[in-house]
Amino acid sequence: MKEPRVGAETLRHFCQQVFERLGVPEEDAAITADLLVAADLRGIDSHGVAHLKRYVDGLRTGVMIANPRVQLIKETFSTALIDGGGGLGQPIGVQAMRLAIEKAREGGAGFVAVRNSNHYGIAGYYAIMALASDCIGISMTNASPLVVPTFGREAILGTNPISVAAPAGQERPFVLDMATSVVPRGKLELYHRLAKPLLKGWAVDERGNTTTDIGAILKNLSERLGGGILPLGGEGEELGGHKGYGLALMVDILSGVLGGAGYAHRVHPKGEGGKMKPGNVGHFFGALLIEAFRPLDEFKTTMDDLIRRLKGSAKAEGESRIYIHGEKEWEMEEERRKRGIPLHPQVLTTMEQIAEELNLPLILDNPSKVC
Amino acid sequence: MKEPRVGAETLRHFCQQVFERLGVPEEDAAITADLLVAADLRGIDSHGVAHLKRYVDGLRTGVMIANPRVQLIKETFSTALIDGGGGLGQPIGVQAMRLAIEKAREGGAGFVAVRNSNHYGIAGYYAIMALASDCIGISMTNASPLVVPTFGREAILGTNPISVAAPAGQERPFVLDMATSVVPRGKLELYHRLAKPLLKGWAVDERGNTTTDIGAILKNLSERLGGGILPLGGEGEELGGHKGYGLALMVDILSGVLGGAGYAHRVHPKGEGGKMKPGNVGHFFGALLIEAFRPLDEFKTTMDDLIRRLKGSAKAEGESRIYIHGEKEWEMEEERRKRGIPLHPQVLTTMEQIAEELNLPLILDNPSKVC
Repeated sequence: MKEPRVGAETLRHFCQQVFERLGVPEEDAAITADLLVAADLRGIDSHGVAHLKRYVDGLRTGVMIANPRVQLIKETFSTALIDGGGGLGQPIGVQAMRLAIEKAREGGAGFVAVRNSNHYGIAGYYAIMALASDCIGISMTNASPLVVPTFGREAILGTNPISVAAPAGQERPFVLDMATSVVPRGKLELYHRLAKPLLKGWAVDERGNTTTDIGAILKNLSERLGGGILPLGGEGEELGGHKGYGLALMVDILSGVLGGAGYAHRVHPKGEGGKMKPGNVGHFFGALLIEAFRPLDEFKTTMDDLIRRLKGSAKAEGESRIYIHGEKEWEMEEERRKRGIPLHPQVLTTMEQIAEELNLPLILDNPSKVC
Repeated sequence: MKEPRVGAETLRHFCQQVFERLGVPEEDAAITADLLVAADLRGIDSHGVAHLKRYVDGLRTGVMIANPRVQLIKETFSTALIDGGGGLGQPIGVQAMRLAIEKAREGGAGFVAVRNSNHYGIAGYYAIMALASDCIGISMTNASPLVVPTFGREAILGTNPISVAAPAGQERPFVLDMATSVVPRGKLELYHRLAKPLLKGWAVDERGNTTTDIGAILKNLSERLGGGILPLGGEGEELGGHKGYGLALMVDILSGVLGGAGYAHRVHPKGEGGKMKPGNVGHFFGALLIEAFRPLDEFKTTMDDLIRRLKGSAKAEGESRIYIHGEKEWEMEEERRKRGIPLHPQVLTTMEQIAEELNLPLILDNPSKVC
């Protein structure tokens, strides 16, 4: 069955209305909606409208605060600490990233830590924000415990993503946006939906042994019974699993420990009877002004040269293309802006439920009109 | 055969004399010697005195400048760009890291890019420097092309290491110091010395297929015939190889492109007939003042808690210990400070040759005295 496609603006408008109906101020609702749609446009569907229900539940149960008191706790010339007041991660994140960019434009570098926040969507969105100000952007966040440390069998760290974006000249910007685990949680859920077994080296069971049993893994994770996703580099140290574990830990130190947010199991304490409890997610944002180091045009020309050198290099047997990070997502965005965003039937059903419960119209474009 | 052990101070003194004899100013020679011995103490033998010969050759052939003109090219409140004048990477790196720390102490964050430098030893040394000033330290460098991009078969990027260090309270500091490839070059050379086959997933041959033929790989790399080490995450995208590739590229952008150093194949242009040519290695250093975000004692207490949570968590079947990054190295350093640094016979022979050529005494302690 072909999935129906919806225009980005339609989707954005619907999400914004949902957030506003739940008490989120207009600008915050617009930002959050924009982030969800940006994820869908870029093909990171797990962080797009498929995630809407979790925010709706969070806002309804008071686990996420619709109109939080966001406070600037501490500030130096090139750093700041923001307390998000338990609000949605997206408006808090955008505010923090804007401040990091402002500081970079004034003094070369800006770094802002955020505590008392929630899931902030795709890490790349914030890093990309820096590009318009001719900065290199950095964004990371901690998250619910899903990843086991090397030689362990308890999920303690999040999939803790890192994003770094840098502009190029004629080529597209470099946008690294990666979970520090072998795979993000979304990929497990996708495989589960498609009833596909996991690949070996993605996750371990409650005894710490590699497993491909996706159902057991997801159950273990949601009930915190043991086992979890492996860090980038896989099991043990032979292929560098300790490196992925180290990167995840680094993200937790910068996003969680440095700003006084939650960390490890304290990011999302487990509520009784599986109930959601307020989390204390931490983020970390950075911006570096390129002109502080080198003339911008030189930087961009050099980026083009480096990108072309990589893309133009000899391919491995059976391969036809070498990618730069972000390239697949830029292409996906072009395609989806033209043809609309495909919605999985399950996602569509959830959207209809949300619309009904909030008494909102859900008017989706006619796919034929979108094409 | 048991390897002879040498005291750290003896080794440091010998290396310093070697550098001074080759025209390196006293303080620079001391710094460079200290970095080599620090690598040996921490068990990163490939970057210790085993590497001395390369610096000696570099200085003798003029590929590395003994007494370079180091220039501060550009400076803002929280950033700087330093041109290393083609000198040894270690004294340039230490100078740059000191500047980053100074800027962090003044304004919360300091970031310094370096161009026109050479191999700077272990990345962790510079990150650790930040700890004494109650900062989080960041250090990275690009390097000779050894790593193939995902779906490629040409080594274009270096093993481009990243190091991040953060202090703890009663626990030892967190010190991540990792090549962004599955394994560093040193590990290949070690396996070659021991005549062990490579593990699958470490490297690809000139057609881009996984290989365990260590001799062929090293030959291919030194003659740039194709093939190379795989990025962290291994071959293709299934286990996240594109993430390691992205991290290596990020390091090249920050260390190479941002400061106008070499990048990719331009870090070390290939000379005719295998001759060494001056390189243009780039580094990137950063420091973040912890007090700019959070009271130092709170940070340290929280780090202790996070570290204990990880170390105290359940172990995978057959495993008895979970490590924090840097922990193995701190323990190795304690042991080697007590018992001396073991020297491989081949390394010892090279040292004897260097001593003879430079007309220097090579007085090694009696191992029984060192113990």
